Amino acid sequence: MQVNGYMKKSCVVLALLAMANFQGLAQANSGAPEPLQVPAKTLPVPTDVSPEMQKIIGAPRRAGWDKLWTTGEEWRAAANAQAAQTMQTLPAMRERLHVTVKPATMDGVRVFLVTPDVIPPEHRDKVLIHVHGGCYVLFPGESGTSEAILMAGFGHFKVISVDYRMPPEAYFPAALDDAMTVYKAVLRTAKPKNVAVFGTSAGGALTLEMMLRAKQMGLPMPGAIAPGTPMSDVTKTGDSFYTNELVDNVLVSRDGFCDAATVVYAHGHDLSDPLLSPVYGDMHGFPPAILSTGTRDLLLSNTVRVHRKLREAGVDAALEVYEGQSHAQYQFDDRVPETKEAFGEITAFFDKHLGH
Amino acid sequence: MQVNGYMKKSCVVLALLAMANFQGLAQANSGAPEPLQVPAKTLPVPTDVSPEMQKIIGAPRRAGWDKLWTTGEEWRAAANAQAAQTMQTLPAMRERLHVTVKPATMDGVRVFLVTPDVIPPEHRDKVLIHVHGGCYVLFPGESGTSEAILMAGFGHFKVISVDYRMPPEAYFPAALDDAMTVYKAVLRTAKPKNVAVFGTSAGGALTLEMMLRAKQMGLPMPGAIAPGTPMSDVTKTGDSFYTNELVDNVLVSRDGFCDAATVVYAHGHDLSDPLLSPVYGDMHGFPPAILSTGTRDLLLSNTVRVHRKLREAGVDAALEVYEGQSHAQYQFDDRVPETKEAFGEITAFFDKHLGH
Repeated sequence: MQVNGYMKKSCVVLALLAMANFQGLAQANSGAPEPLQVPAKTLPVPTDVSPEMQKIIGAPRRAGWDKLWTTGEEWRAAANAQAAQTMQTLPAMRERLHVTVKPATMDGVRVFLVTPDVIPPEHRDKVLIHVHGGCYVLFPGESGTSEAILMAGFGHFKVISVDYRMPPEAYFPAALDDAMTVYKAVLRTAKPKNVAVFGTSAGGALTLEMMLRAKQMGLPMPGAIAPGTPMSDVTKTGDSFYTNELVDNVLVSRDGFCDAATVVYAHGHDLSDPLLSPVYGDMHGFPPAILSTGTRDLLLSNTVRVHRKLREAGVDAALEVYEGQSHAQYQFDDRVPETKEAFGEITAFFDKHLGH
Repeated sequence: MQVNGYMKKSCVVLALLAMANFQGLAQANSGAPEPLQVPAKTLPVPTDVSPEMQKIIGAPRRAGWDKLWTTGEEWRAAANAQAAQTMQTLPAMRERLHVTVKPATMDGVRVFLVTPDVIPPEHRDKVLIHVHGGCYVLFPGESGTSEAILMAGFGHFKVISVDYRMPPEAYFPAALDDAMTVYKAVLRTAKPKNVAVFGTSAGGALTLEMMLRAKQMGLPMPGAIAPGTPMSDVTKTGDSFYTNELVDNVLVSRDGFCDAATVVYAHGHDLSDPLLSPVYGDMHGFPPAILSTGTRDLLLSNTVRVHRKLREAGVDAALEVYEGQSHAQYQFDDRVPETKEAFGEITAFFDKHLGH
């Protein structure tokens, strides 16, 4: 050392104590694990994302995130109000992405047929089923088609978006029942390997729940799935419910609106049932899966936990984590570069796995 | 609605305002992006990880995380003190994992040959190069072999662990130079496709820096790489430097010991040089890569940013994110189930890509 003396030796002893906590020794000097106190902090808007995404990340927390309605009727009123706003944004998006949307029914279930103007030859025998998000209560009717439009537009796939029944029209397991009806109908005309299922948030959970139900029913698996930031655990378990609390500006808190809405949909059913919390399901035999989330996502943990479960079950599963994004923000706006990036990843994954 | 009246209608209006912030509209009603104020919080120890990992996650923050020594000599004193402790843990780990370690030199560079007792036939022509972590200043000599032992033991591969020069013996780019010398020596006896490079933290950065340097030198790429939670950006850029500040109990803060140590290693060199901050490098032509991190990792962002860069460059890149883990905790203790899981993933990835 260049400098000697008592102070310097004290530093070395301090160093020894300090370093003992690093790599391989952390467990040796710890007692019972204890909660961690984290002081208040200020999060700057990330500089390493696009300017468009900076606006989304830097937006204030969702107003009314702590609205905890307890009835399907209240949620439907809220959902209708939001749907009216969302609907105003859809025509321009369809035009930008060269996609048309038509209502239809399949075996009695309401769907929207979402079709890109240009479908490349290798996609003509492929069919994607979209299950929209919204905590099982939001985005009724055509307002639930936005992610399907993104997928059809960026991926050039035909998409069937399921307008599943929601409270107060119906409760658990109505959404899953409707999605399965559509899946079975699609299987009558398409090879399973040419079918993919995708969705975000509650739609990501429903995608996983559909696979569990298909296994129960002895139906074939589709060629691939893309569960985006799935609500895979509605029992409030998952570390990012704490680390990203009040960091995620969309869901905000495990005790927020989305949890309350799910309780309404569950309608008294056990929330730990894998058909509501699919992270607890047996994922052996699942098809190749691509999962998407963001570093600020309240459901970061519940996305990576599903990824781990899939990998442990031997499934070919890819995980995409987007810098700085809160819940589901990779599918908020088709004009944001990160949106194109996310749907580009899903398209590449489907192209790799469908048909094989 | 079941209940009517003025209050209820107010709720619907509130709902409309509340929901306008969700999906597709967040950017419409936001002004300039603003920093987010996050109040103090308490993080419970996650319940959805193994009891062994709970102890590591629940350990107090590394003591002395804010030690900011400014000379190579001070760091070496600290590193030696820590190394003495680490060394005590290695014999039992080698015995548990059935691995032997022998010192050697390759073209003048100190290495350790880390060999499992059992090498399956398909691994006999494969060679792994390990570049250890420790902020470019820690884990001198044999104390740097622990991750190599994990890889050899769980993966049943031959591993060459590079005991690269560190401050005060030498400064940037000595660590990279030494690793490249070993890589070139290995290429004299092994096909590039049978070689993999891996390491964690500074070792993850060095793994990426080696690929950039190999491209500069016109050397062939190895068959695969495994950069674990790489120090890919030492300019303090990356959102999890903020979101996981004082949440990660290993690195703790972007203004902590590891940053200070890297500045000492850089020795005045520009920290944004891709050979110090490889996230800024051109990753086209990189070999298949598997990245590992944890949801509480201070370098979560700088791992996922590398993953995005690799994917944008068309590289076959896998991302593994482990629930609740802070920086590099997937390689803290061979007796923790999540350690076996992480090295199992890397092994499967190497088995898939090496030799092809």
